[in-house]
Amino acid sequence: MRNRYFSSQPDTQRAAAELYASAKDLPLVCPHGHVDPRLFADPDYQFGSPVDLLIIPDHYIFRMLYSQGIALGRLGIPTLDSAPIESDHRVIWQLVCDHWHLFRATPTGIWIRDALADVFGITLKLNSANAMTIYDQIAAQLASPAFRPRALYERFNIEVLATTDAATDSLQQHIAIRESGWDGRIIPTFRPDAVVNIDADWRDNIERLGEAAGRTVHDYASYIQALEDRRAFFQSLGATATDHAALSAYTEALPAHSAETIFQRALKGAESSDDARRFTGHMLLEMARMSSEDGLVMQLHIGSWRNHNPAVYARHGRDMGADMPTSSEFTRNLKPLLDRFGNHGKLRLALFNLDETTLSRELAPLAGHYPILRLGPPWWFYDSWLGIMRFLDAVVETAGIYNLAGFNDDTRAYPSIPTRHDVWRRACAQWLAEQLLRGFIDDEDAYDMMRALAYDLAKETYSL
Amino acid sequence: MRNRYFSSQPDTQRAAAELYASAKDLPLVCPHGHVDPRLFADPDYQFGSPVDLLIIPDHYIFRMLYSQGIALGRLGIPTLDSAPIESDHRVIWQLVCDHWHLFRATPTGIWIRDALADVFGITLKLNSANAMTIYDQIAAQLASPAFRPRALYERFNIEVLATTDAATDSLQQHIAIRESGWDGRIIPTFRPDAVVNIDADWRDNIERLGEAAGRTVHDYASYIQALEDRRAFFQSLGATATDHAALSAYTEALPAHSAETIFQRALKGAESSDDARRFTGHMLLEMARMSSEDGLVMQLHIGSWRNHNPAVYARHGRDMGADMPTSSEFTRNLKPLLDRFGNHGKLRLALFNLDETTLSRELAPLAGHYPILRLGPPWWFYDSWLGIMRFLDAVVETAGIYNLAGFNDDTRAYPSIPTRHDVWRRACAQWLAEQLLRGFIDDEDAYDMMRALAYDLAKETYSL
Amino acid sequence: MRNRYFSSQPDTQRAAAELYASAKDLPLVCPHGHVDPRLFADPDYQFGSPVDLLIIPDHYIFRMLYSQGIALGRLGIPTLDSAPIESDHRVIWQLVCDHWHLFRATPTGIWIRDALADVFGITLKLNSANAMTIYDQIAAQLASPAFRPRALYERFNIEVLATTDAATDSLQQHIAIRESGWDGRIIPTFRPDAVVNIDADWRDNIERLGEAAGRTVHDYASYIQALEDRRAFFQSLGATATDHAALSAYTEALPAHSAETIFQRALKGAESSDDARRFTGHMLLEMARMSSEDGLVMQLHIGSWRNHNPAVYARHGRDMGADMPTSSEFTRNLKPLLDRFGNHGKLRLALFNLDETTLSRELAPLAGHYPILRLGPPWWFYDSWLGIMRFLDAVVETAGIYNLAGFNDDTRAYPSIPTRHDVWRRACAQWLAEQLLRGFIDDEDAYDMMRALAYDLAKETYSL
Repeated sequence: MRNRYFSSQPDTQRAAAELYASAKDLPLVCPHGHVDPRLFADPDYQFGSPVDLLIIPDHYIFRMLYSQGIALGRLGIPTLDSAPIESDHRVIWQLVCDHWHLFRATPTGIWIRDALADVFGITLKLNSANAMTIYDQIAAQLASPAFRPRALYERFNIEVLATTDAATDSLQQHIAIRESGWDGRIIPTFRPDAVVNIDADWRDNIERLGEAAGRTVHDYASYIQALEDRRAFFQSLGATATDHAALSAYTEALPAHSAETIFQRALKGAESSDDARRFTGHMLLEMARMSSEDGLVMQLHIGSWRNHNPAVYARHGRDMGADMPTSSEFTRNLKPLLDRFGNHGKLRLALFNLDETTLSRELAPLAGHYPILRLGPPWWFYDSWLGIMRFLDAVVETAGIYNLAGFNDDTRAYPSIPTRHDVWRRACAQWLAEQLLRGFIDDEDAYDMMRALAYDLAKETYSL
Repeated sequence: MRNRYFSSQPDTQRAAAELYASAKDLPLVCPHGHVDPRLFADPDYQFGSPVDLLIIPDHYIFRMLYSQGIALGRLGIPTLDSAPIESDHRVIWQLVCDHWHLFRATPTGIWIRDALADVFGITLKLNSANAMTIYDQIAAQLASPAFRPRALYERFNIEVLATTDAATDSLQQHIAIRESGWDGRIIPTFRPDAVVNIDADWRDNIERLGEAAGRTVHDYASYIQALEDRRAFFQSLGATATDHAALSAYTEALPAHSAETIFQRALKGAESSDDARRFTGHMLLEMARMSSEDGLVMQLHIGSWRNHNPAVYARHGRDMGADMPTSSEFTRNLKPLLDRFGNHGKLRLALFNLDETTLSRELAPLAGHYPILRLGPPWWFYDSWLGIMRFLDAVVETAGIYNLAGFNDDTRAYPSIPTRHDVWRRACAQWLAEQLLRGFIDDEDAYDMMRALAYDLAKETYSL
Repeated sequence: MRNRYFSSQPDTQRAAAELYASAKDLPLVCPHGHVDPRLFADPDYQFGSPVDLLIIPDHYIFRMLYSQGIALGRLGIPTLDSAPIESDHRVIWQLVCDHWHLFRATPTGIWIRDALADVFGITLKLNSANAMTIYDQIAAQLASPAFRPRALYERFNIEVLATTDAATDSLQQHIAIRESGWDGRIIPTFRPDAVVNIDADWRDNIERLGEAAGRTVHDYASYIQALEDRRAFFQSLGATATDHAALSAYTEALPAHSAETIFQRALKGAESSDDARRFTGHMLLEMARMSSEDGLVMQLHIGSWRNHNPAVYARHGRDMGADMPTSSEFTRNLKPLLDRFGNHGKLRLALFNLDETTLSRELAPLAGHYPILRLGPPWWFYDSWLGIMRFLDAVVETAGIYNLAGFNDDTRAYPSIPTRHDVWRRACAQWLAEQLLRGFIDDEDAYDMMRALAYDLAKETYSL
């Protein structure tokens, strides 16, 4: 359906379709996501089965099935203790298709349907009867060279794709991509959470940080130096951004000696939970300081309570669809950071969160004033048609569109990337069509805004 | 107006009307509400005057009139001290009709208008001029056998109707209904708030609990046993669910000795407010444990600050339209309960609350993962056209519709039951029509979802 | 575009246009705003340059430009230390127009465009090329007698306009207006924040309060008496309302001796921050007490974190577009005030806030019960097309429209007043048209509601 998702009101549909047509062929700028760089390091990388490609990496899918009582092991999700799980991918695919009605009216349902149609040319409806036919059609295509990741990169018209990489990562895959001479642009993103958030694994990660940076990390000063070294290394391989996740947006400027004291306590495993909270808050501010110097765009993802379900975590580990949103606060929490860097000429801070109530109340007013701020697109549970509509409704009137960071797909599901951009572009076209037909904006405005939302803002925000 | 409430856009209206037509004659499943079982115990029960039927039991109506300065006594609302109130129901009806403009664009206005039209065949507009004519038309019909509750039960096409009953209730009315041989299905619901929330009346209620259970309740163990006995008794009379109300969703697993200690302090009237809060939180968890064993579906209604207006409470008592919503939190508060029972195969927990911000941020993500969770329909102030639209917009993209509990009317206003279901069905039809015309779902999806939302989900959630 | 902003669906547009037509020529009632009374005291007052008129007083405009890296000094915003700023207003105007795309789809963009068209007859689009032409057109008109404030008052069809004035203000401008014999109705509003909120300037303001009231303010009793005197003085010059701003809606009834103790500590500069918080909460309650006696309508604006950006505050002072919304709470915070005065027959309290989540959850339920409450229209960041739509969607189903305070423009941008009322009237017409076409209300309802929202409710709420 060419005009899918647009309003059924004829004038609006026509205007939306025209706006969409002006942007649909623009290259895809992917400044934030979780695709594995290995896909591109090996020119002959193959995806495995349809289940390997579409089910096992997609927690949107298996969380929904789990909510209806289907054990994760039946879906091929590995267990930490290597307990037996379903290994016949045809059985798994049939099980998923038997329950595909669960995804009616969900973004997951739409992404999979559109990706199957647009990438694989499959227009059969997913259901019990069609399951094996569709499986065979996907599997046949995955075996062909046209479905190697690099070939898809070209076909998807991707201009640049950023991965997300631990601060301690050797970036060997990225080096291999560069050395292969391939001309796709895959760049790393510096994600230091594991060496910044003091938890059970932190000391191990500090050790790895030292190894990666080639220096002993024994105090706060050497720790900061190691982080700066790693940032420079990431930049040398094309990184233009960092990424940070925290439960809360709490920031605090610790005096140097307090940072040192907490750091030393943590090295001994003697930190308190308050130490950890304050240290994270302090390091967000310190990362802003580094970004103000080296120009890496800072991304901040706030509000996810990781691994909320202890039974699932114990059995299957992290990223199992059991991360849960919490309420967020920015006006107060970000103030220490903004007091120090909010008016900085070089720093750029892109904010993402899982609490829509902050959009009109805090994020848009903040972004409509502070020069360093940009608002990231709707994240995670909100990366959906209605989520995008609510986002634009909530922020544009106060912050305009030029304080937005454009779109990023934030996915590990590589074949869904074009679909996700397509949904964003269609949603923006629909939103702008309403604005246009009601006379809030004129044609010139609408087409400029369409291009900005689809392409320009992401490039500009991330210095790409 | 046959297509009332649907979009005025012709395609959407047609699609909505067709979807609605497919579901409008399905039987009414009423798994949660507050109709008095006496209506059905006596085959010749009569409703009294139009004011007895429509005004005095409906706090939606008298709260609005009160907000514009009309004293409750003038509306026939009894006082606790038997101070004189208006007793001429014609005068009251005239007063209500003189101010009926206050209800423009409110669900109350719609329910009353639709109930008068659909149940009584009255299409005159409520206003000062028509007041007495309408009063007479209602009064005349109320006197006829066709307006006995049992006759209306048939005419309304109700399949099952659950009442809400104190844990200490003898269920004499329910027994009488059963013994009368009438084949309507009226079932009780186990509501233990008064013996779980430690307040001024708690000790009296514990005494009553012991009497009802036929055992001495002198310690925590006998208290738990009495509760389990009562649940079994309710089940023997057809109950399939329990219902719990709390200001907050706070849960906590107290060690057995702490539960005992608090229980004993409370028996002596020496509990602290923190004791009360923790005991309620603990008992929610304990009720989940019992439900995981006996299979009663657990309903949880969160966020109502009861009796917010002390002057009205002192004069008229509880349920006077002065209960007020508060902000709620679930991700953190429910975690102790979910840690223990969230993955249980038999337990089902239906959540209701008065804070719409939790819908997309907490409730839909939780329900889209935890097998035990279902989301109840919009409650109380949100049981309205726009409230339903916002609810579906906020939850379906993340949780789908199969983690919803369908509809319940939650009313003590018996004649409004068909109208409330009708508004829900129309709202769902309108919402699905948009999804259909925009290509998010296809015809098969839309009609299946329509039936599920109108009928199947309520039956399945409540094991009816 | 005659039907601008209405739905593009033909039936809805027609219905909206007809409803709007019925109300568009009603006089403007302006019960709350920040226009300087000097504009009216001097019959020959002139506005200065287009930048003086439209840019320098409008923090909506310069906050957006600042968010994109344009220093406030380049926009002619004065610095506290008289550091040099751009003084060529043509250069400033050109700079603003070069960046006018930032305001696409914002209310600021709409207000300026509509005000230029409707007040100045300028329909050229603001952009780099047109900047100087438009500047000259505005400047030429500002020089003519038709653009004196009093002439515009007539042309705008204003019926009454309230200013906002410090409790210590001499009201000399208001006296001058009265004495001039001009028949426009400009009335003061009593705003005591500076003598109620204990901060650095409080002691100076208390001194000024004593001077203004002509009595020594040396203790709590004389302080209260001085406030009552000032209120009576404001009333003698036509005031019908007071206005109060606070970060939180916290209220508390302090015992008289505690109020005295805090007052004395504050006079010595020895108050704690908790003292300040509690004193403000107490004084809100005390102001309600005074209003219950003298009949001044009480307005309460909650949730703005003033001067959030310390660098901007240090350089340019207050009201620089750096006030930020915070989350609010009313059900608990207002309870002490409502316990004492919520059912009062004479008091009226109009609530405004910057946290939309409170609208359906707290404010509408409270206003739909307590006789003293009215809900003010969307404030500040929400005084926009979508903000108004969300407001009506959130509150009307629960509180109806007759617990609303109608519209007020709350602006210091005098020439934008007609446009702001026009946007409100158009938004209400669109909202009512949807209600009408969907059959929630009928024609009689819709036209009555249109007039009430456009005109009657503001007059009635503010006793004008």
